[in-house]
Amino acid sequence: MKFVIIGGDAAGMSAASKAKRNNPQIEVTVLEKTLDVSYSACGMPYNIADPSRDMDDLVVRKADVFRQTNKINLLTGHRVDHIDPVRKTVSGVILSGNTDSANDCLDHVSSGDHDSVIADIHQKFSCPFDKLLIATGAVPIVPDLPGFDLPGIMALKSLEQGRQIKKFIEANNVRKAAIIGMGYIGLEMCEALRARSIEVAMVKPGHQFLPWMTCELAEVVKQELDDNSVKLYGGHTIIKIEQVAKSKSSEGNQHGRKFALSVVCENLTLDADMVIVASGVRPCSELAVTAGIESGISGAIAVDKMLKTSDDSIYAAGDCADAFHVVTGEKCWIPLALRANRAGWAVADNVCGIETSLPGVAGTAVFKVFDLQVTRTGLSVKEALAAGFDPVEVVIKTRSRAHSHPGSRSVHAAMVGDRKTGRLLGVQMVGKDGVAHRINAAAVALHANMSVADFAQTDLGYAPPFGPVWDPLLTAANQLLKKM
Amino acid sequence: MKFVIIGGDAAGMSAASKAKRNNPQIEVTVLEKTLDVSYSACGMPYNIADPSRDMDDLVVRKADVFRQTNKINLLTGHRVDHIDPVRKTVSGVILSGNTDSANDCLDHVSSGDHDSVIADIHQKFSCPFDKLLIATGAVPIVPDLPGFDLPGIMALKSLEQGRQIKKFIEANNVRKAAIIGMGYIGLEMCEALRARSIEVAMVKPGHQFLPWMTCELAEVVKQELDDNSVKLYGGHTIIKIEQVAKSKSSEGNQHGRKFALSVVCENLTLDADMVIVASGVRPCSELAVTAGIESGISGAIAVDKMLKTSDDSIYAAGDCADAFHVVTGEKCWIPLALRANRAGWAVADNVCGIETSLPGVAGTAVFKVFDLQVTRTGLSVKEALAAGFDPVEVVIKTRSRAHSHPGSRSVHAAMVGDRKTGRLLGVQMVGKDGVAHRINAAAVALHANMSVADFAQTDLGYAPPFGPVWDPLLTAANQLLKKM
Repeated sequence: MKFVIIGGDAAGMSAASKAKRNNPQIEVTVLEKTLDVSYSACGMPYNIADPSRDMDDLVVRKADVFRQTNKINLLTGHRVDHIDPVRKTVSGVILSGNTDSANDCLDHVSSGDHDSVIADIHQKFSCPFDKLLIATGAVPIVPDLPGFDLPGIMALKSLEQGRQIKKFIEANNVRKAAIIGMGYIGLEMCEALRARSIEVAMVKPGHQFLPWMTCELAEVVKQELDDNSVKLYGGHTIIKIEQVAKSKSSEGNQHGRKFALSVVCENLTLDADMVIVASGVRPCSELAVTAGIESGISGAIAVDKMLKTSDDSIYAAGDCADAFHVVTGEKCWIPLALRANRAGWAVADNVCGIETSLPGVAGTAVFKVFDLQVTRTGLSVKEALAAGFDPVEVVIKTRSRAHSHPGSRSVHAAMVGDRKTGRLLGVQMVGKDGVAHRINAAAVALHANMSVADFAQTDLGYAPPFGPVWDPLLTAANQLLKKM
Repeated sequence: MKFVIIGGDAAGMSAASKAKRNNPQIEVTVLEKTLDVSYSACGMPYNIADPSRDMDDLVVRKADVFRQTNKINLLTGHRVDHIDPVRKTVSGVILSGNTDSANDCLDHVSSGDHDSVIADIHQKFSCPFDKLLIATGAVPIVPDLPGFDLPGIMALKSLEQGRQIKKFIEANNVRKAAIIGMGYIGLEMCEALRARSIEVAMVKPGHQFLPWMTCELAEVVKQELDDNSVKLYGGHTIIKIEQVAKSKSSEGNQHGRKFALSVVCENLTLDADMVIVASGVRPCSELAVTAGIESGISGAIAVDKMLKTSDDSIYAAGDCADAFHVVTGEKCWIPLALRANRAGWAVADNVCGIETSLPGVAGTAVFKVFDLQVTRTGLSVKEALAAGFDPVEVVIKTRSRAHSHPGSRSVHAAMVGDRKTGRLLGVQMVGKDGVAHRINAAAVALHANMSVADFAQTDLGYAPPFGPVWDPLLTAANQLLKKM
């Protein structure tokens, strides 16, 4: 059986490896347009923060290992341009300018080991499949505005983009950066740049900082940014970016470029040596849509619980595909790494005849903003209202450790329950100590459809160095019960 | 209504406060034999570790606050010796040698505000009740062996015992300690003493270190003790303790005592300035048993899910009472603080006519051994076998953070599932980073009767500074599924 995978990142490589583990007889071909596969994309901001680290530290497994050890026909530098669901082929071009790695693949192809991939002299290829996985991921949304193609304006999604940002900082001795957008990636990049003593200003059109987050908690995050000298400019529509001659004062910087960038917004202009565009991502579903495959929420490829698209032979997984939300039961598009890996495995199982369906996601997310651990799972009040629930929220401030125990820090938690059914709907938490992993208890409760009352009775661990007797989650649940 | 509570620690004071919050008209009397109420007992080892801290830092709320603000008739220094379930009275003695605090209570009693407590001239008192809560806690098991009454041999349960240990260390310039027992308290005390540069040797009759823990994980804890120069002597039956003249070498210690203690065991003698007896605790259920109330597992007072004893008017909560285990559905005796507080609240609710029943405990416990976070929830293989399950266990070693992220440490996890039903039965984890709160996700899964397969699909948080994409719990679940 020929199992072809478009995209060699989390979902794609997880599927490829799992399929080979399930059944070594399956012929697995991965077509990846870049030269990088299997790297920790989420680790990039932390790598950029540290000049002593090589960006390639983030590569979990090298392409050659997949080829030699896992016997996967991994073809980097192969961009798929067309899926033909009727004839069951994918076709595209081998990107020129590729290095050894891609050429290795070509050699590999011509060696006849995997003669199903046919590359012609025009560097075009086509490849038949029995089962296809589309794992094309997501791409950063870059506003269609003047000047966004100037040098020094960069987004962060691929490893190559990570390398470019890091290289640019060093080559141009960047001292001042502007970040467009204030989501996860923007905030993580902000911390990375501050770690390198780069001045950071963040700007976005919307007025509300972290709009998915309860105000009191968002204020805590805002304060942390302020404490780390990050300037936040919410409510400024971006108009264009211009190249400007550097002012005299910054010319003292001998290694820097002669030109700076100027982010022109409504009522605001930000000068910077570098601009990071972090205005969100969108699913790469064009290939699928053009092939007649159904797309759904946020334009992501619509899949069922077995990750199958509207075409029986074609699966989609990772950031390009949608998922079911365990709280609403409805489709959602929450592009995160765990789901991508898990979906990749599930596709491999289904392709190999091991029926596997995924219950869905709880929307659990955790990120770090300087010393702050910021996390959420499930629905916010706004999301709960939109999903037809009757949400009640409680916001508490408590401590991360026992009464009088040294090192105890504030923990802010918001918990949402449904007045009608008593069900737990979501939790958000912010704090500098013991927040990141605490959220998981709530995530499991969401998977189990637990009521707030039942969650309040759970036997969570207690020891003075790690928490108060009543864990912040239990205190929140107890308080929420009173309001419900 | 007269609601009388025997014992003014976690369960007792929680019940007293909650009853008053529920209904200020209820007359609540707490009879506590010591002079201390409402303190963080679990915090004592950490307080002993730090000479600059006062033991009374651990007092969460002072007795007078309960009296004045909460309007609780709190009588310290009142030891209850008898419960008469038929006449619905408790009686006992007011302990002599008590300080102002107890005398305050007497004044308080004689003032007529709470004239139901009648103290006679012989310092005896009796007190009628409509509803009674027995919250007498647990006491350390002190072996009935020669020499255990010598000065310098101490157990740690009450705040007064904590004060005595701390005072003894300072007054006698303790440099060398022996700990009898290797359970939670012993290990926490071991860390506390090492923090004060006191040499520590631990001894117990059993050969197996942490017998409830999977061997591989117990070895990690053992190694941490070894790394901190703690000597472990398992498999030595204790025979007696003797007072011995100090050797010349230790006489150089001018502030020390002239005598040392010698713990005489089979094939081993340990010299020490101080001996901590940490051989476990037993429930204080004598009062209840003598009154004809049923006791159950481990001699604890048997209660139903509403915390009611075999007598309709009498409740028991905290370390003196048993509980249902959410995994086995059977009774268990796991004396921990969260359950005590929760049970106290539940009793108050039931006494006030708000029907409340507790689902039970998962046996979640977490403690710190130097830099190591040690935690468990649910059943070990041995316990699962005893409960009639068909347990399968997997033990994994993974990392606490993402691939290549700085600060990542080893995480050892053991997970037990039931082959017959696929159910998750228990988890144990050990590691230096991000272990303590991770266990709570598994604890919630146990409350929800989740299968290992369902738990493996939960959407746990991921960010490189806080974990690998596949959380250690998910990796363990995935591995366990393969074995089941």
